[in-house]
Amino acid sequence: MNTSEFRRRGKEMVDYVANYMEGLEGRQVYPDVEPGYLRPLIPDSAPQEPDTFEDIINDIEKIIMPGVTHWHSPYFFAYFPTASSYPAMLADMLCGAIGCIGFSWAASPACTELETVMMDWLGKMLELPEAFLTEKAGEGGGVIQGSASEATLVALLAARTKAIHRLQAASPELTQAAIMEKLVAYSSDQAHSSVERAGLIGGVKLKAIPSDGNFAMRASALQEALERDRAAGLIPFFVVATLGTTTCCSFDNLLEVGPICNKEDMWLHVDAAYAGSAFICPEFRHLLNGVEFADSFNFNPHKWLLVNFDCSAMWVKKRSDLTGAFRLDPTYLKHSHQDSGLITDYRHWQIPLGRRFRSLKMWFVFRMYGVKGLQAYIRKHVQLSHEFESLVLQDPRFEICAEVTLGLVCFRLKGSNKVNEALLQRINSAKKIHLVPCHLRDKFVLRFAICSRTVESAHVQRAWEHIKELAADVLQAEKE
Amino acid sequence: MNTSEFRRRGKEMVDYVANYMEGLEGRQVYPDVEPGYLRPLIPDSAPQEPDTFEDIINDIEKIIMPGVTHWHSPYFFAYFPTASSYPAMLADMLCGAIGCIGFSWAASPACTELETVMMDWLGKMLELPEAFLTEKAGEGGGVIQGSASEATLVALLAARTKAIHRLQAASPELTQAAIMEKLVAYSSDQAHSSVERAGLIGGVKLKAIPSDGNFAMRASALQEALERDRAAGLIPFFVVATLGTTTCCSFDNLLEVGPICNKEDMWLHVDAAYAGSAFICPEFRHLLNGVEFADSFNFNPHKWLLVNFDCSAMWVKKRSDLTGAFRLDPTYLKHSHQDSGLITDYRHWQIPLGRRFRSLKMWFVFRMYGVKGLQAYIRKHVQLSHEFESLVLQDPRFEICAEVTLGLVCFRLKGSNKVNEALLQRINSAKKIHLVPCHLRDKFVLRFAICSRTVESAHVQRAWEHIKELAADVLQAEKE
Repeated sequence: MNTSEFRRRGKEMVDYVANYMEGLEGRQVYPDVEPGYLRPLIPDSAPQEPDTFEDIINDIEKIIMPGVTHWHSPYFFAYFPTASSYPAMLADMLCGAIGCIGFSWAASPACTELETVMMDWLGKMLELPEAFLTEKAGEGGGVIQGSASEATLVALLAARTKAIHRLQAASPELTQAAIMEKLVAYSSDQAHSSVERAGLIGGVKLKAIPSDGNFAMRASALQEALERDRAAGLIPFFVVATLGTTTCCSFDNLLEVGPICNKEDMWLHVDAAYAGSAFICPEFRHLLNGVEFADSFNFNPHKWLLVNFDCSAMWVKKRSDLTGAFRLDPTYLKHSHQDSGLITDYRHWQIPLGRRFRSLKMWFVFRMYGVKGLQAYIRKHVQLSHEFESLVLQDPRFEICAEVTLGLVCFRLKGSNKVNEALLQRINSAKKIHLVPCHLRDKFVLRFAICSRTVESAHVQRAWEHIKELAADVLQAEKE
Repeated sequence: MNTSEFRRRGKEMVDYVANYMEGLEGRQVYPDVEPGYLRPLIPDSAPQEPDTFEDIINDIEKIIMPGVTHWHSPYFFAYFPTASSYPAMLADMLCGAIGCIGFSWAASPACTELETVMMDWLGKMLELPEAFLTEKAGEGGGVIQGSASEATLVALLAARTKAIHRLQAASPELTQAAIMEKLVAYSSDQAHSSVERAGLIGGVKLKAIPSDGNFAMRASALQEALERDRAAGLIPFFVVATLGTTTCCSFDNLLEVGPICNKEDMWLHVDAAYAGSAFICPEFRHLLNGVEFADSFNFNPHKWLLVNFDCSAMWVKKRSDLTGAFRLDPTYLKHSHQDSGLITDYRHWQIPLGRRFRSLKMWFVFRMYGVKGLQAYIRKHVQLSHEFESLVLQDPRFEICAEVTLGLVCFRLKGSNKVNEALLQRINSAKKIHLVPCHLRDKFVLRFAICSRTVESAHVQRAWEHIKELAADVLQAEKE
């Protein structure tokens, strides 16, 4: 395909994308296909001679779309939102064209420098403590990771390295393995599975702290675990506090947990993957109080801040903690500025070596929405979740299972888990809307997450009417 | 930005991208900026009110482009290529619009199933042993990782888990830490820095095996290390063999190393990040001989197979080895098909949880180029590197430093490292072309990598004329 054909096909694709977005409401949110549907629809192997673009674009509707779960449908209320906006898509087109691999400053200075400044912009939007920003030429700074899972892992590895160095400095006879055997990390029992995974990968123990009645990690439970583990000869070194858990959007008590971490010399990583976006609104900023105690903080603009996946924002108070865990400098990656102290080589901040020019998406989105536009977007979602909450509360057959703070409502039929499982099964079989469940303690709970950029009150109302109808069927079937 | 404005701006962006690609040859390949250039050019913080699209598009040329290293310029001969093609860019536009997060089959069946089939297509192009394909419903299969670094890490972690389980089954009293202390992994002394990094992250020893005169890992050196380490009580468990090293595109001897790994019960990971794309040509397929001994194999279509970054193709012979290392199943990610054995949940195959619909890029590229088109592309690059090699060989002041097999030529002025460092410094200061160096043993060497999709013989000739002129200057300056 030459450039002039790209001009033509690219514009056709822009229209295809625009038509897709406009027509999303009319598509069934969850597909009808069964596992293995796709393979019989396409050839066994790649063609020897080129296919035409027409063939391919036709196959999108025939082969791909029947198997797509439409995350941007206004009837998608599952998981958590994943961001989608036109400015981010435009930026991604530019990112693809520039196509630089920004592993070092020299590999593309604009790629590194825009990222650093965008992370400062975003940090200021959240009113992060200055220690996390690069601007003041301090020791902190921000980086775009691919996902919150990677941010948690990177933080854990940095904390592990730091703990090993500290302990070996005090007792040079200790081997790394002898130390790792005793290291123990903590998170709430409500933390995301990626935290447990980071512990697995890092080869250290990860213990779940029982959360309180509001599904929050509190000082007392953490303190108890620390005392027990220290008495058993273990070495606590890392705590993940979650702001906005995946199950029910609960908030660990940072103001209690933070000082303990600082006092006990444990790295505190704050994971606000979903909720973080809301902190750009002054009325939600208090939820971030206590971040001043953290060593690292992460949230996903690619969830709720209109920056398409992937864009996970991570800040650290001390850059050298990350780079110390990863830094290796082969000749083919050396460049003349790297020891000047003036530049950032982001390859030392992350697991992969290569990296795309992802800050372009942030730049386009922040500028084309403006802070006020982004705040309005967050507020609209929060308002819609409260609207759904009040609908649920008006129906005595249902109950709300956790405080509704942002865009997630956890609810269920008063009654057995079985009846709620049956309700969810009916909802997802009907495929008019899409939800996923969670467990809160021993309760099977339905999660209603406000997700789509285009979701409006009317969609929420229709979803609720639909849920009520199916609930009536389920309750009727139970009686029979 | 509403959909009708996106239709307009999207088409403008298509033209901007097309103009950029057409005009690349006229842009200086390496930027003039100094560290810190960007921050003074943009505001301190995000705007409260929206900026216009015109503002932003104008700022691209004013703020971004002056700091871009143009990886797709036909005068870019640094690092290794990173792929860029119009079909991949079109696919990425679609990927951005669908915007699904494919962590499980249910999260978007098409995203998972197209990936599985595309990995089979690609595996067949390379004539990978059937054990690596999914098609035959065996135990193997392919997955798209973000980078070769991640593939190596994932392989190492899977091998670590497997080794720990095996050793604990034999000696239940052994702790994980006691085993990890003794685990040792190997790669050639020419392996990429990401291998050492995987060892650091995984918390295991990584030893470099001295390569032979052709910069290849051979049986004898590996065997020697194994014997020495076993005698010292260590437990060899993992070997990375590289096909096409970053320094000089050398090839470890898989046919020697493979059987040793199988016999000694060590996981063999084959990293062909750059060279792998060439194996779609029958005349280069012999370089992959011995992959039948491997447990996992990886290469980067995002380097040299016209699939834009990121798309790192990884296959394993036994899927359960990967998923065994990572599998965690919280309620909010469970779905009704997951225990059927019919589906793949790729989240268990990788470090992050979220994943984009990257197989669309493979599908578009494979279909719009056809296998023959892709082979022609590889052959053209290899031919250009041989053309450069013969130019170098015709000049008695220069020497070739490693066998030229694919698209990389390692060369230098006969003489000191100092004179070669001076030559590289002149080349990269002149900014007409861009190269990076490497060290081969104690020699400072210049790497000339054929990179751009649009590079032609004329660019290679011009680059050589330019290098010769600068070499004359350097040699003259040395005399004075």
